[in-house]
Amino acid sequence: MATDLFTHTVQHTLDVVGIFVFAISGALAAVRRNYDVFGMAVLAEVTALGGGLFRDLVIGAVPPAAFTDFGYFSTPLVATALVFFLHPEVERINVAVNVFDAAGLGLFCVTGTVKAHTYGLGLTPSVALGLATAAGGGVLRDLLANEVPSLLRWDRDLYAVPALVGATTVALLIRFDALDGVSAGLAALVAFVLRLLALRFHWRAPRAWHRRSAAAEGE
Amino acid sequence: MATDLFTHTVQHTLDVVGIFVFAISGALAAVRRNYDVFGMAVLAEVTALGGGLFRDLVIGAVPPAAFTDFGYFSTPLVATALVFFLHPEVERINVAVNVFDAAGLGLFCVTGTVKAHTYGLGLTPSVALGLATAAGGGVLRDLLANEVPSLLRWDRDLYAVPALVGATTVALLIRFDALDGVSAGLAALVAFVLRLLALRFHWRAPRAWHRRSAAAEGE
Amino acid sequence: MATDLFTHTVQHTLDVVGIFVFAISGALAAVRRNYDVFGMAVLAEVTALGGGLFRDLVIGAVPPAAFTDFGYFSTPLVATALVFFLHPEVERINVAVNVFDAAGLGLFCVTGTVKAHTYGLGLTPSVALGLATAAGGGVLRDLLANEVPSLLRWDRDLYAVPALVGATTVALLIRFDALDGVSAGLAALVAFVLRLLALRFHWRAPRAWHRRSAAAEGE
Repeated sequence: MATDLFTHTVQHTLDVVGIFVFAISGALAAVRRNYDVFGMAVLAEVTALGGGLFRDLVIGAVPPAAFTDFGYFSTPLVATALVFFLHPEVERINVAVNVFDAAGLGLFCVTGTVKAHTYGLGLTPSVALGLATAAGGGVLRDLLANEVPSLLRWDRDLYAVPALVGATTVALLIRFDALDGVSAGLAALVAFVLRLLALRFHWRAPRAWHRRSAAAEGE
Repeated sequence: MATDLFTHTVQHTLDVVGIFVFAISGALAAVRRNYDVFGMAVLAEVTALGGGLFRDLVIGAVPPAAFTDFGYFSTPLVATALVFFLHPEVERINVAVNVFDAAGLGLFCVTGTVKAHTYGLGLTPSVALGLATAAGGGVLRDLLANEVPSLLRWDRDLYAVPALVGATTVALLIRFDALDGVSAGLAALVAFVLRLLALRFHWRAPRAWHRRSAAAEGE
Repeated sequence: MATDLFTHTVQHTLDVVGIFVFAISGALAAVRRNYDVFGMAVLAEVTALGGGLFRDLVIGAVPPAAFTDFGYFSTPLVATALVFFLHPEVERINVAVNVFDAAGLGLFCVTGTVKAHTYGLGLTPSVALGLATAAGGGVLRDLLANEVPSLLRWDRDLYAVPALVGATTVALLIRFDALDGVSAGLAALVAFVLRLLALRFHWRAPRAWHRRSAAAEGE
């Protein structure tokens, strides 16, 4: 089913684009932390491929695509070289990076959910793995940078929710037998737009009730 | 063998109880760190299912039970909702949480050891995986909270030792062909009681010799 | 092919030596962080076996050798006991530890690359897994110690590059059908010597261009 969704070339191109933009975000995080070129390459690889690697280990798709597809593996190295030589310029187009990152998020939550379901998992765990595919690389990036994963912080714009909405949409499409290239693309688009709106309007997720009232008192 | 230990219903119920109490501890850790509701759900899932997930990946039981059993997966979400709305009340029953957590520790070190051995591992690595099942989720929780795992800190009451005693007891029972529902339950009970005693009397593990004498001089 | 490289006894002995010296480095890190004896054992196991465990999960060699070979598993416990009783003496021979660690690095980058290729991976991902085998345990050690992995820091002497050179040499030997016990040993020797030279002359990897000029201005 997954292979019928898009033509292989389209799918592969979209994957490589998603990997590239995630890798840029990883390499930039390494520069901000003052890592050397090796740290940049490691963070680029981990950010771009970590989520899919986790998904593949869980569903038993070994060796994972990250290690069998040369394009997947080498793309983060290209991103690293780009950031290494041009990082002030890349920083300046931070808005563009955020837009590409949102596109990667939308794409990966869809392909991750589809791949997990193709390997026989139920719809709910497939949604969880779609979310893990989209957001897992960023969590690993933050762990390696010795920071609290921005996914978990309340003072960051919504990141998991758009991916969750996209993955859930895919699960519903599978459930009602309506998944095809167009509807999958629309699900990715929904996640993409939601993430852009969250960035634009600083949407945030609620914290536990008590915390919020305590914060309100503090204001 | 594992399936004969307890009836499936009893086993499943005990697992869900263990998952629930570990999830409560994860969600509370997220509230203390001021994470949003998503961070709470992620930490609840990771704390409750992370140890078993690691074990299943190592023994090749893919997809892991965490992703195939809807009850396992959804229980941490229930725990998250509970903590989200009621966390001051949950904090107040911290003693109760510690008791439930000790029960989860006892149960998971037994079931983890049995499952690893069922998948063909030797007794020593099965004990190691029993320990990993019981304590691994807490380590992942602490990593995601950007803290030194409390498992490793000398100033925390014994946590690994009770699990290790329980897992070793199970290994000895397997070795002498004496493992059944009753003896497995007793092994879990031993780990449970040891953990409660460690909490009550603040038992701690020794540090390296030199450190201890240096600390003694400092007093 | 891997089994023909060295006789099994030689291979196993070299592996155990590598595991032992990595375990010493893990246990010493735990003592420096003031962990108890359990934290020492956990860090010793993780440092010594973590890289190979990751490789085995990725290539689908489950259960991983770390859990099926009693010698692999118990060696870190011996190292822990040694550091526990004698750690001031062990600290004093820090130079020796660095030399042994470099030997472990050289050996593991070779055996990791060979094992990955034996399991059917291409040459480039095999090199990546050789690097992960050699350096992965140290990264996990630093994560558990809540520190930025020293592998990623620009102010540490080169660690990844020697392993990468060793692994790449092995890949080239495989490519040109020239891998045997002698040439593999030479590849390990190259990585070993490069690491010693990096330590001796404080070789470091470059950071992104902008960072370096900013640092130069600051001087």
